[in-house]
Amino acid sequence: MQTIFAEIITIGDELLIGQVVNTNASWMAQVLNHAGITVLQVTTVRDDRKAIMDAVAVAMSRVDIVLTTGGLGPTKDDITKTVLCDYFQTRLVEDMSVRAHVHALYKNRPEVLNSLTATQWLVPSHATVLPNRVGSAPIMVFNQDKRVLVSMPGVPHEMQIAMTEQVMPYLQEHCALAADIIHRTIVVYGIPESTLALRIEQWEKNLPKSIHLAYLPKQGVVRLRLSSYSEATEQEVEQQISTLLPLIDDHVIATDDLTPQAVLGQWLTQRKQTIATAESCTGGRLAALLNEQSGSSAYYMGSVIAYANSVKRQVLGVSPDTLATDGAVSEACVRQMAEGVRALLHTDYAVATSGIAGPTGGTTDKPVGTVWLAWATPEGTFAECRHFSGDRAQITDNAAMAAVGKLLLLIKKT
Amino acid sequence: MQTIFAEIITIGDELLIGQVVNTNASWMAQVLNHAGITVLQVTTVRDDRKAIMDAVAVAMSRVDIVLTTGGLGPTKDDITKTVLCDYFQTRLVEDMSVRAHVHALYKNRPEVLNSLTATQWLVPSHATVLPNRVGSAPIMVFNQDKRVLVSMPGVPHEMQIAMTEQVMPYLQEHCALAADIIHRTIVVYGIPESTLALRIEQWEKNLPKSIHLAYLPKQGVVRLRLSSYSEATEQEVEQQISTLLPLIDDHVIATDDLTPQAVLGQWLTQRKQTIATAESCTGGRLAALLNEQSGSSAYYMGSVIAYANSVKRQVLGVSPDTLATDGAVSEACVRQMAEGVRALLHTDYAVATSGIAGPTGGTTDKPVGTVWLAWATPEGTFAECRHFSGDRAQITDNAAMAAVGKLLLLIKKT
Repeated sequence: MQTIFAEIITIGDELLIGQVVNTNASWMAQVLNHAGITVLQVTTVRDDRKAIMDAVAVAMSRVDIVLTTGGLGPTKDDITKTVLCDYFQTRLVEDMSVRAHVHALYKNRPEVLNSLTATQWLVPSHATVLPNRVGSAPIMVFNQDKRVLVSMPGVPHEMQIAMTEQVMPYLQEHCALAADIIHRTIVVYGIPESTLALRIEQWEKNLPKSIHLAYLPKQGVVRLRLSSYSEATEQEVEQQISTLLPLIDDHVIATDDLTPQAVLGQWLTQRKQTIATAESCTGGRLAALLNEQSGSSAYYMGSVIAYANSVKRQVLGVSPDTLATDGAVSEACVRQMAEGVRALLHTDYAVATSGIAGPTGGTTDKPVGTVWLAWATPEGTFAECRHFSGDRAQITDNAAMAAVGKLLLLIKKT
Repeated sequence: MQTIFAEIITIGDELLIGQVVNTNASWMAQVLNHAGITVLQVTTVRDDRKAIMDAVAVAMSRVDIVLTTGGLGPTKDDITKTVLCDYFQTRLVEDMSVRAHVHALYKNRPEVLNSLTATQWLVPSHATVLPNRVGSAPIMVFNQDKRVLVSMPGVPHEMQIAMTEQVMPYLQEHCALAADIIHRTIVVYGIPESTLALRIEQWEKNLPKSIHLAYLPKQGVVRLRLSSYSEATEQEVEQQISTLLPLIDDHVIATDDLTPQAVLGQWLTQRKQTIATAESCTGGRLAALLNEQSGSSAYYMGSVIAYANSVKRQVLGVSPDTLATDGAVSEACVRQMAEGVRALLHTDYAVATSGIAGPTGGTTDKPVGTVWLAWATPEGTFAECRHFSGDRAQITDNAAMAAVGKLLLLIKKT
């Protein structure tokens, strides 16, 4: 089957001055990939006529599908629609169905439909307009020389609904998509990337050229991804995985591309067990991480975020002596926090964190990044001191992930 | 002063199959921008020789500074170093100072230095190598025809330290950076983008061409950004802002580019007031949002995440009657949660959330996205029902942001 290539062009000054993180690109790339479309490049340009023109021209010259996001709002800084009109040598005309849709949309909104919004139903006469169920900006499809460009709004929620409900079905119908890209991911915890690479060195050497291996380390978790671009069969990829797994069995937490929090959710749901958290330095990140999972209410009971020592004492029952003698960032404190919340919320497991997220509050003994973690389990309570580097967000993210990763290894042993 | 232009090239298959969000690009863009460097484009390419070559060639042909990240790891999928070697027609040689650094680095690590890591001290003979304090991959600077390319590792934490401590000082010294880009941001809450645009229409019409206005809406917050690229003076921009502010005073929550949670932190710190949270559907997101702020321990006491109804009853004191009659997603419940946690943790303010984050659990009366919010304050308790669209993450993010945004407007009135 022929490989279909795509490029993504994300448009907006806010992306190039760093005010906004480009989450659209990765979301779209994932969807395209799952549909068997190879994404060759993501290009981010300013709300600037020449920059948009150039990026569109280059992309249209080398790939089958070009997807653009952004620059479709009603305000003056949004120019994508008029630039595309010029590129495809067409002009703006009123679209009555878009007009009716925008009017219907504003019936349910507190704000009034105004003259700026009215520009939203002007669309290029040569474009196919796909409905935007949740927003006023039209989704526009341009066809030229068997290649297709789709322009979507940049608001992530609108783009995602547009992609799922309109754009992907359109591409499926019009672009003869293949589905021969294979990605398989093994998720590993508790072993550094280079140690892992050495352990599987011989296996990696014997890997056929048709299968590509990538190491994706993040927050102590390493994802090993095996990919084939129309070259190997699914059986061949599976064969390699079955040779790989016994080499790293003590560290494997998932044989699918799952997050550690998703794996924990599956295991606890299967075992009908529950969990609670008690957080100091992670300040809600650990709870938020666990609750990213749909269905978490089946096993996640709740948390006490004990930022203040008074809350550690009064709600979690940490002993005043411990706080006075060992301090809040100590093995004794974090053990009492974990056991306290486990008893308070009557759960099977409880995880607690206490540390110094920074940038202030560090001492020589306990520098910024020092985090005590404890896991209260039916088999007893375990504690560990870790040292994370990075800024406040990285330290809390890494500590929250370590809390989940180590818990998975503890549960795996039981 | 001459404008300095830059492009960013982020390298890695993981970015193009959507496995990883490109946070590096926005972080780097922000740093470059603050140094007065205009970022023209971000290009993301695969770990592919031709793709990297092409992207580097295009960027080197049109800007002063090219920054690349990624592809410098010790494993076989990382090829950036050898590709850059070929592009700049140089070859790899051993660098003794990098070798010594990597050895020193591994002294403090649990893993052993192995043969893969050993490739890290091979560097291009024509490159200037800058020290990578926290990692083993060298930071390489290539100079050609008065243009400069800097290659950095893709691990965000390593890249950030490299940029801050090495790359920016190097660029300051070698590229005669100007600092004449002006960005000023006004942050507005509680007014939709198009209503806002109409309200300031006349002002916008009178804006001189040297000042560019952008609307950046996200999660109910609209940032109005005024920018000047070497054309207007700081006084001219300030002049426009002082005309703008009285038009939108009832919705302005910040006159700097601050997040709502940062503004809340400033206000509570100044007033020496404290806050607690009680979360059901937001599951820790609200607490995590507030604790993103460094120094939050000065005003944030803690939270009770009451995912299970038993926790709502036992820890927060929500009445069993309320839960039986009105349910957990109700005004009565969320008011009791806010007042309960305010009393339990002895704070000035408390915010509570209870809703249906989905994708399951919705009913006709209370569809997915329904969220009750309550704010217990010294002036009384206020509650509001909101309907958010999007997926689970978007609903919880939006609900958490609404909890903070509305609280700011409530505090502003006092």
